[in-house]
Amino acid sequence: MMPTLSGATRLYVIIGDPIAQARAPGGVTAAFAARGQDAILVPVQVAVADVHDFLSVAARLKNLDGIVATIPHKFVCYEACAGASDRARFLRVVNLMRRRADGKWHGDMIDGLGFVGAARAKGIDIKDRRALLVGAGGAGSAIALALIDAGVSELAIHDNEAARRDGLIERLNTLGKAQVRIGTADPRGYDLVANATPAGMQAGDPLPVDVTRLAPSAYCGCAITRPEVSPFIEAARKAGCVTATGTDMYQAQQEMMLDFLLAEDGQD
Amino acid sequence: MMPTLSGATRLYVIIGDPIAQARAPGGVTAAFAARGQDAILVPVQVAVADVHDFLSVAARLKNLDGIVATIPHKFVCYEACAGASDRARFLRVVNLMRRRADGKWHGDMIDGLGFVGAARAKGIDIKDRRALLVGAGGAGSAIALALIDAGVSELAIHDNEAARRDGLIERLNTLGKAQVRIGTADPRGYDLVANATPAGMQAGDPLPVDVTRLAPSAYCGCAITRPEVSPFIEAARKAGCVTATGTDMYQAQQEMMLDFLLAEDGQD
Repeated sequence: MMPTLSGATRLYVIIGDPIAQARAPGGVTAAFAARGQDAILVPVQVAVADVHDFLSVAARLKNLDGIVATIPHKFVCYEACAGASDRARFLRVVNLMRRRADGKWHGDMIDGLGFVGAARAKGIDIKDRRALLVGAGGAGSAIALALIDAGVSELAIHDNEAARRDGLIERLNTLGKAQVRIGTADPRGYDLVANATPAGMQAGDPLPVDVTRLAPSAYCGCAITRPEVSPFIEAARKAGCVTATGTDMYQAQQEMMLDFLLAEDGQD
Repeated sequence: MMPTLSGATRLYVIIGDPIAQARAPGGVTAAFAARGQDAILVPVQVAVADVHDFLSVAARLKNLDGIVATIPHKFVCYEACAGASDRARFLRVVNLMRRRADGKWHGDMIDGLGFVGAARAKGIDIKDRRALLVGAGGAGSAIALALIDAGVSELAIHDNEAARRDGLIERLNTLGKAQVRIGTADPRGYDLVANATPAGMQAGDPLPVDVTRLAPSAYCGCAITRPEVSPFIEAARKAGCVTATGTDMYQAQQEMMLDFLLAEDGQD
């Protein structure tokens, strides 16, 4: 349940295409109320062809205080920000934007923190794990950076789009923290497997990795929120793995989202 | 209270500038829930300079099913409609737009029905009343048409903008139903007085009519929703008049709004 809405309620939107799968509208709106904020987060389904026009208009809406970006708008939203956190600038992607005092947008990208937070909530220590990440897009690149910051010993990245995979690997290796290299769909030898692709949202999608080769000791996390349990997570559970779903990942970052959206200027 | 919001919730917006005074977001959203609809009406503050761009983008948002227009956007919203009810076409103004199956907007203008409905809810028979209307804008013109349709014997219209006043009078007289003529701020001789101007929203605003000349038998209605009781209505009550506020007028039209927004194609 949510508090009463009025003409004075401050507006936040989550944009994506599709948008029906998004968990944030209900959770963030309830969390606004829990913090005493008369504010709401509403879903807006914006096509790729329309997102530039949408962002142009959104910048001028007087009661719109923030934007949450989901697939496929996280990169274009970064371009619309006048400023952003260090991690968002490294990744060149945002999933959160809040209105600054000068009316412009300040961005952050916390999908990776959600992945790491969900693992910790399951009792998993990420440090020194050998990690395989599938998907080098917006969420994938953020998860990669967060895994490195959390201390994985090595990180392999699998993505059929070789250019974005190799570009991400190259940039991550400039950090000099973990060995980052090209991965495959074979999870043998890894004790952390992350899916950051949409494979599993539609019936008949291929699995992101060869689940017959998952070790029971491998922690498996997935970014998909709908279905609630993706085929990858279902298979990982059958293999005896500790798992976290996209909803677990979302839950782990919801309070961070609120902290960011409601922060004052000058704070990350 | 409202039901739980999700990414699949269908979106309706009310646009205006200002927007904080709008009653519809809470009321319509609760009424959607009462009808079993997973839908929400949210306030969006759009400046006059931005409304064309806003409407251009709104037409392309895939989960936006309707728009409620308030001051100052009711005329431009009519222009954005591919079709509209007879009364909206006569007035060339809309306060409601719903998405047709072909993706375009169908409009209606029910502010006048709200005024008449509020009067009836107060036990007032409008037939054969001598009416004075102040304000010939979007809401005013709709109230004028609804008063004529409800059977007033005469209608005087007062507005400092002579061109729009005279244009409205001329068009209303083509209906051949009631005698419509120019009015003044003097309510003597009238037994129905309607304020459709924003005079009274701000402290220090002039009163729309000379309230020292109100007859206790005159029914007084006002379109202002904030403050809850406008100075005009406060004075009319002191004079012994039966009154209705803008909120009464809003309440009278809320179910009509729902009927329109949720109707199928081909229905007015």
